[in-house]
Amino acid sequence: MKLARLGEVGAEIPVLMDGARAFDLRGVLPDLGGSSLAPEVLARIAGADLPELDAASDRRVGAPIARPGAIVCIGMNYAAHAAESGSPPPTNPILFLKPPNSVVGPNDPVDIPKGSTRMDWEVELGLVIGERCHYLDSPAESRRHIAGYLVADDLSEREFQLELSGGQWSKGKSSPGFCPLGPWLVTPDEIDPGNLRLRSWVNGEPRQDSSTSDLIFGVDHLVWHLSQFLALDPGDVVLTGTPEGVAMSGRFPYLVAGDVVEVEVEGLGRQRQVMGQA
Amino acid sequence: MKLARLGEVGAEIPVLMDGARAFDLRGVLPDLGGSSLAPEVLARIAGADLPELDAASDRRVGAPIARPGAIVCIGMNYAAHAAESGSPPPTNPILFLKPPNSVVGPNDPVDIPKGSTRMDWEVELGLVIGERCHYLDSPAESRRHIAGYLVADDLSEREFQLELSGGQWSKGKSSPGFCPLGPWLVTPDEIDPGNLRLRSWVNGEPRQDSSTSDLIFGVDHLVWHLSQFLALDPGDVVLTGTPEGVAMSGRFPYLVAGDVVEVEVEGLGRQRQVMGQA
Repeated sequence: MKLARLGEVGAEIPVLMDGARAFDLRGVLPDLGGSSLAPEVLARIAGADLPELDAASDRRVGAPIARPGAIVCIGMNYAAHAAESGSPPPTNPILFLKPPNSVVGPNDPVDIPKGSTRMDWEVELGLVIGERCHYLDSPAESRRHIAGYLVADDLSEREFQLELSGGQWSKGKSSPGFCPLGPWLVTPDEIDPGNLRLRSWVNGEPRQDSSTSDLIFGVDHLVWHLSQFLALDPGDVVLTGTPEGVAMSGRFPYLVAGDVVEVEVEGLGRQRQVMGQA
Repeated sequence: MKLARLGEVGAEIPVLMDGARAFDLRGVLPDLGGSSLAPEVLARIAGADLPELDAASDRRVGAPIARPGAIVCIGMNYAAHAAESGSPPPTNPILFLKPPNSVVGPNDPVDIPKGSTRMDWEVELGLVIGERCHYLDSPAESRRHIAGYLVADDLSEREFQLELSGGQWSKGKSSPGFCPLGPWLVTPDEIDPGNLRLRSWVNGEPRQDSSTSDLIFGVDHLVWHLSQFLALDPGDVVLTGTPEGVAMSGRFPYLVAGDVVEVEVEGLGRQRQVMGQA
């Protein structure tokens, strides 16, 4: 299933997508997020008689989950990206957080922050938790806690992240709009998270083009590992890291107002953000 | 005013404290957190006829705000603590995040995580946002965005934070129970945040004993500075950093199960946590 939330900010309607058509889920669940992502709730969708939502293609696409409790991000999880960032591959997953109020829809405009000189893109495979995880016994237990997958752009301001930060990355990862999610939450039956092409473009020119098969720490390992250090709750989002091909590499210019960023993960859809200036 | 939330987990009742007596706020606001912290909502409390809550002293004390959207923490904000941690004083505030599901009440037991060998305490002055802050023009604007102050214990696992983390501290700051808040949210009219004694004890023996007058970056500067890098929303919590006297200094042993940690900030109350073992 491809699940989405359509409508203006704060008034999104949860829907099931079928091609360009959308079917209203409000008779089955109040919104997509938190306890509504439990397997027994999502299982109700298949058998439900869902009314079609009119004018689906004219509506804004929101983030496919209502505001998460936590956005847990993994850094340096592709060897070639670690290299272009000047770092060796990590021996353990590197964890940092983005605040939930950085989430926006996949095609919402994003303002480059005041004082920014190094605004960068990062296409990522994201996953959404469906059932609480704490102290999972093994990576094999991870899958049943995952409600689905989505595209994320882990937008980053590199001077904020690396030079004004004392080394703690969240300062460059947290501005409003820095976490576009969606267009869809795709349920696990449709996705092999270990073999997805992920790409990004700026003004139509290719930037990143890799596969999740290059992840140093895959989805199962990550969820198990994270569960040893924190509890992941339903609706929490995990961003699994970005591959090579960002501006920080020195091979491409940083973003300026007017630039158009597109990011795509195979099977999960494409985002398009027009950069503005705060 | 001293505001609190009394009752079992998930069923806390918002109250106004008057000594040991508690007065039910549910006729004035649904809970303490988010938009209920706006100045115009809190202003209604003074004139309201509030019923007294029975058996107040027998009830569990919850965190004084319902689950925040973000917990924004400042690192190395006392020069002597930076020194005991082996770091020079920072030239900019250092920002990291704790996940909201790490919040517990001030006297709830806290489990030392599995695999932990270096469990540490950190008494901190916390502040709670009442009105959204983004791009404040100056530190002088900060005060009107603050709903109140509270005690926090920024519990930390140092091996997780520093050695298994790739240098990103959140991995050692995020376990369930790692953010006891309260007992009260104290409104700004009762508090001078620039001159508060803050102390901690382990099993009754003194550990930290400093003053917020030693903060490198004070409350006004922090809120203004943070607002340049992210948006702070009503109900978000900012922890301002901890002074010297933690176990990481080498002067005191790390915590083990059965230890009792107490932390206090002048005018904001005292917390008491019995350490368990996950």
